[in-house]
Amino acid sequence: MQNAYLSAALERIASTRPLIHHMTNLVVASVTANLTLAMGGLPIMASAKEEVEEIVSKSSVLLLNIGTPTSEQLEAMERAGSMAKELKIPIVFDPVGAGASRFRTKAAIDLIRELQPSVVRSNLAEALSLIQEDARILGVESLEDDEETAKRAARGLAARFGCVAAITGKVDIVSDGENVGRITGGNPLLKSITGSGCMATTAVACFLAKDTPIKAAVLGLSLIKTASELALEVKGPGSFQVSLLDAVYRLREGL
Amino acid sequence: MQNAYLSAALERIASTRPLIHHMTNLVVASVTANLTLAMGGLPIMASAKEEVEEIVSKSSVLLLNIGTPTSEQLEAMERAGSMAKELKIPIVFDPVGAGASRFRTKAAIDLIRELQPSVVRSNLAEALSLIQEDARILGVESLEDDEETAKRAARGLAARFGCVAAITGKVDIVSDGENVGRITGGNPLLKSITGSGCMATTAVACFLAKDTPIKAAVLGLSLIKTASELALEVKGPGSFQVSLLDAVYRLREGL
Amino acid sequence: MQNAYLSAALERIASTRPLIHHMTNLVVASVTANLTLAMGGLPIMASAKEEVEEIVSKSSVLLLNIGTPTSEQLEAMERAGSMAKELKIPIVFDPVGAGASRFRTKAAIDLIRELQPSVVRSNLAEALSLIQEDARILGVESLEDDEETAKRAARGLAARFGCVAAITGKVDIVSDGENVGRITGGNPLLKSITGSGCMATTAVACFLAKDTPIKAAVLGLSLIKTASELALEVKGPGSFQVSLLDAVYRLREGL
Repeated sequence: MQNAYLSAALERIASTRPLIHHMTNLVVASVTANLTLAMGGLPIMASAKEEVEEIVSKSSVLLLNIGTPTSEQLEAMERAGSMAKELKIPIVFDPVGAGASRFRTKAAIDLIRELQPSVVRSNLAEALSLIQEDARILGVESLEDDEETAKRAARGLAARFGCVAAITGKVDIVSDGENVGRITGGNPLLKSITGSGCMATTAVACFLAKDTPIKAAVLGLSLIKTASELALEVKGPGSFQVSLLDAVYRLREGL
Repeated sequence: MQNAYLSAALERIASTRPLIHHMTNLVVASVTANLTLAMGGLPIMASAKEEVEEIVSKSSVLLLNIGTPTSEQLEAMERAGSMAKELKIPIVFDPVGAGASRFRTKAAIDLIRELQPSVVRSNLAEALSLIQEDARILGVESLEDDEETAKRAARGLAARFGCVAAITGKVDIVSDGENVGRITGGNPLLKSITGSGCMATTAVACFLAKDTPIKAAVLGLSLIKTASELALEVKGPGSFQVSLLDAVYRLREGL
Repeated sequence: MQNAYLSAALERIASTRPLIHHMTNLVVASVTANLTLAMGGLPIMASAKEEVEEIVSKSSVLLLNIGTPTSEQLEAMERAGSMAKELKIPIVFDPVGAGASRFRTKAAIDLIRELQPSVVRSNLAEALSLIQEDARILGVESLEDDEETAKRAARGLAARFGCVAAITGKVDIVSDGENVGRITGGNPLLKSITGSGCMATTAVACFLAKDTPIKAAVLGLSLIKTASELALEVKGPGSFQVSLLDAVYRLREGL
């Protein structure tokens, strides 16, 4: 995707500063809040059951990420998601670690069934576990990264749950259940930092404030791949993470 | 404020290494712990109700930040704050997101009423919501930033609750309910990173270990503004956050 | 320790990508996940009691860190640790803040007694509190750093609990209860960033996937000291933290 196209899409976000309600894991809360700001959105991280319905009702998009789930948080997600569904506020779902434990796999499938997110963003192993195929998953990292399998999984996931499926990997795959698109490129260091997948989910969420699910998915995944290529003075995963955020900001500024 | 003056105030902190008990949100726990260390203080992040009273009793300052509140954490804050009040250990309060939900607004007002913090550090929308004026708040970001309104809000907040009010924005405002001071300058990127307000609160808390509330508020807000101007090699919000911490450390070292 | 030796040990990790199950505090969850990836391991941060037994059973090592403890998390740690013990999966324990509150000291001693970790990694004040000697601890930072005391504490801790004791400080000390080794060097800025001790614990955990407890402890502590010396373009604690992660990655790549 051309940088100017991404810049224009980011400008559409920054011009209205949509509120992106994150219910996410404690590992990536900081970096995804910063990414939201870099993209021109406004993040709010709120998971208390007493307030999530009110907060989501003021939000443009709800992002649900089960990276460090607890029963209480899942219950609050269900509550926030139901309100979002009622108000037709789009939901992006990130099934972090689906397949790593039965608890997570079931929680992910239950939430997707009930809340009908517009987009599910995952890695390949998580996607396979959601359509109940065996996957070699270890922790929250996918050990699989085969493009043909990813295309099949994306189409299957999208068709089964009526969502757009966005699967990140060496090549990113997006599908609405029929069509399948691929996004290439990206810095290999994306695999060496925690939360690069979660950042892609946040990017999709921000674009979803202004664009259709399929377009938001393509834009979000393209933004992370493109920014990862524009990252400057990278000497390892520490400096890469810093430069990735800078690059998103510079893309938005059209620099 | 002159850099040498800030350096001297930081040196007073570093010479005694005060313990700053943070009960804070999960987004900024890491960066505020690092800021406390950079300023020469010692951070402890502890929110379990079983230990907060003992820990606050050994601390120089208690910082309460409701950025990602839960009922349990609010209860533990009430417990820690009551002990601090009894022992005359000063409290800094950060009403993150007051106005974003009734739950937060009420929690913030209740805690301030009961615990009588020495300083309340907030943005303008949060301050307005605490004095029950309408504010355009979206998430945890203030959409208002008018200096005259901020002066009125700071004076009103300080007078109503008997605290020092410190409102950060394009121009920072500090008031004890009668007098009003303003702090100018600062890098505009402060608005593009999450937790810059929470960092200001931590800065105030560290200075409060050695200085009066009004002086600590002015020093804390000045430190963040000054360090943001001294940040080197900034290419966006990622590198800005890194350089901001470096700049605080260099100020303390008198470099 | 020679860099080539560390590189070879890191290569052993990266060749099998062991899963390192972290149950840790919210301040360091992000940086320790990133360190695990930089070392070639796979991190999973999971603390829900519903899933910890299943996740630990798939893991190579379990890391328990009580930096921001709650009753629920401690209960989940007990559950995960019991499963690890039964399956002979090695445990690394980090008693963050032992001595800072009776709650933490008791929790740490109880968990060590029950779960018999292979390695306990701590600072000196924490180690002293675990063998019930008076220690000058303030928050989670040790105010003590005397090499002879550290040697005595390491030997005592290891002998009492039948583990390897790894005490970080100006000079790091490792003991199996009889022998005592020392690791020198390191960048003094390690004391100015939060989580440098927790990073050492994660480093030990990663090496423990492939090496004996005593060797893993020496390798883990050496890695952090060595990487801290290799960190480039350090202008303060912010850039140091970034460069430290880069340096670990470069060591692994043999650069």
